[in-house]
Amino acid sequence: MESIQRRSETALAALLPEANIAPNRLHDAMRYAVLGGGKRVRPLLVHAAGQLAGADPERLDRIACAVELIHAYSLVHDDLPCMDDDVLRRGKPTVHVEYDEATALLVGDALQALAFQTLAETPLSDEPAVQLAMITLLARASGSRGMAGGQAIDLDAVGKQLSREELEFMHIHKTGALIRASVLLGAQCGTPLPPDDLARLDHYGKLVGLLFQVVDDILDAQADTATLGKTAGKDADHNKPTYVTLLGMADARALAESLLANARSAIAPFGEQAARLDELASFIVHRRF
Amino acid sequence: MESIQRRSETALAALLPEANIAPNRLHDAMRYAVLGGGKRVRPLLVHAAGQLAGADPERLDRIACAVELIHAYSLVHDDLPCMDDDVLRRGKPTVHVEYDEATALLVGDALQALAFQTLAETPLSDEPAVQLAMITLLARASGSRGMAGGQAIDLDAVGKQLSREELEFMHIHKTGALIRASVLLGAQCGTPLPPDDLARLDHYGKLVGLLFQVVDDILDAQADTATLGKTAGKDADHNKPTYVTLLGMADARALAESLLANARSAIAPFGEQAARLDELASFIVHRRF
Repeated sequence: MESIQRRSETALAALLPEANIAPNRLHDAMRYAVLGGGKRVRPLLVHAAGQLAGADPERLDRIACAVELIHAYSLVHDDLPCMDDDVLRRGKPTVHVEYDEATALLVGDALQALAFQTLAETPLSDEPAVQLAMITLLARASGSRGMAGGQAIDLDAVGKQLSREELEFMHIHKTGALIRASVLLGAQCGTPLPPDDLARLDHYGKLVGLLFQVVDDILDAQADTATLGKTAGKDADHNKPTYVTLLGMADARALAESLLANARSAIAPFGEQAARLDELASFIVHRRF
Repeated sequence: MESIQRRSETALAALLPEANIAPNRLHDAMRYAVLGGGKRVRPLLVHAAGQLAGADPERLDRIACAVELIHAYSLVHDDLPCMDDDVLRRGKPTVHVEYDEATALLVGDALQALAFQTLAETPLSDEPAVQLAMITLLARASGSRGMAGGQAIDLDAVGKQLSREELEFMHIHKTGALIRASVLLGAQCGTPLPPDDLARLDHYGKLVGLLFQVVDDILDAQADTATLGKTAGKDADHNKPTYVTLLGMADARALAESLLANARSAIAPFGEQAARLDELASFIVHRRF
């Protein structure tokens, strides 16, 4: 896992324009937003699913970068004053605090463009048509019916009582879409899999995406800011519904354990080939509790 | 020209998710941001260059939509309080005024994703590899070394004295990159052109992009807000350098006329085939003075 995290960091550092290229301040801020932090969960999922499909690791690096760039842009925009108004991310000042709001806005915009450039500019499949399908998948997962849509539902939920179904609908979009896409993109980069296998991976991706959010809510509720590296307890403070406020801590933990068990079952038919995906699901749950 | 503008409007309306699809408010705001306004200069350029290369008009519609979605997202973000803080666009309240800032931020993000989805999800060339090159071109033109980079240079220029070279460098990125990309994407969608022809079109695109900005500065300096449909005189008010403040009105007009002449010369070797591109260059200059 550490070796994938390291190679993802290296690949991202090579991909992002250097800070001595104009516009310097923008490039500096883009590097600040992306490098030197983060658990790189999405790159880990890309590589784990890609390995199962026999994909080329260097191609997987590019895909991992594209997904991580989308993730990084969403954090930068999400932290802006008009959204979550957060000052701390990965233990550092957020981009708009370290630079300024206008720069943070442009950093996010430019990182999104770079993500699609990264998916398009070098061959990532022996079939260019498959690569086009991969770009479509990432675009859908990022857009108004994926991640950005999830953010909009989140905005709308502030101060409201959501049902468990509504909370799940929000997270399937907000966090889940990109995590699910990470698994599928890794798989699509390799030898074409039979539809049943793809469906298994898709199911795994969906469960792991939800799992990730449930665990995030648990960590947010119990950790202090220093451990978390971002402002703790902010969702509850912002009057945002979370799995912990909705279900209570004990049931939220039980939900996490059951999602984990289901995610592992989904990929059990792959046997040893899915060892990394299996490990990753546990990593997501047990990363901090 | 009107027929292309109409068909672009229809294509965009069909492409944007309906406002009764969740998240409703986001989709409503996306439609508000894109539909019912604008001269559609970029779609006109896509179609004019595409026609020259014998491209299929329905494929050109998709490309025109993708470019216009990028343009529309950039306007929404550019109007935000942390950027130009503008309240009026195309004669209507800007998106963050009509909705709210967070929604405007997400509208821009989701429109960018939709642009790349549009370029990837249906065949736009008989060669999928060519389509990948088209996506790369749009991503580069939109990103930190294209449009978003131009915005960053613009931010940095507030209150500064720029030389004519610096002003040109800014505009070649901020407005020019996407206009140039419109011409090249239209051309790439058709029968492959010889490198010399592509170079001519690229030169035309570069000149027309600059021309567009010079004319914008002239219009901004002389028009009143009602005619312009956006806040007039704001660049000078914001202490931003413009071609008019730098060169004076007479020289700015002379520059526009000379860029027009050069753009027309660049495509003269195409003869009658380039009639639309020729018309468009004149349209850009003479649209309002």
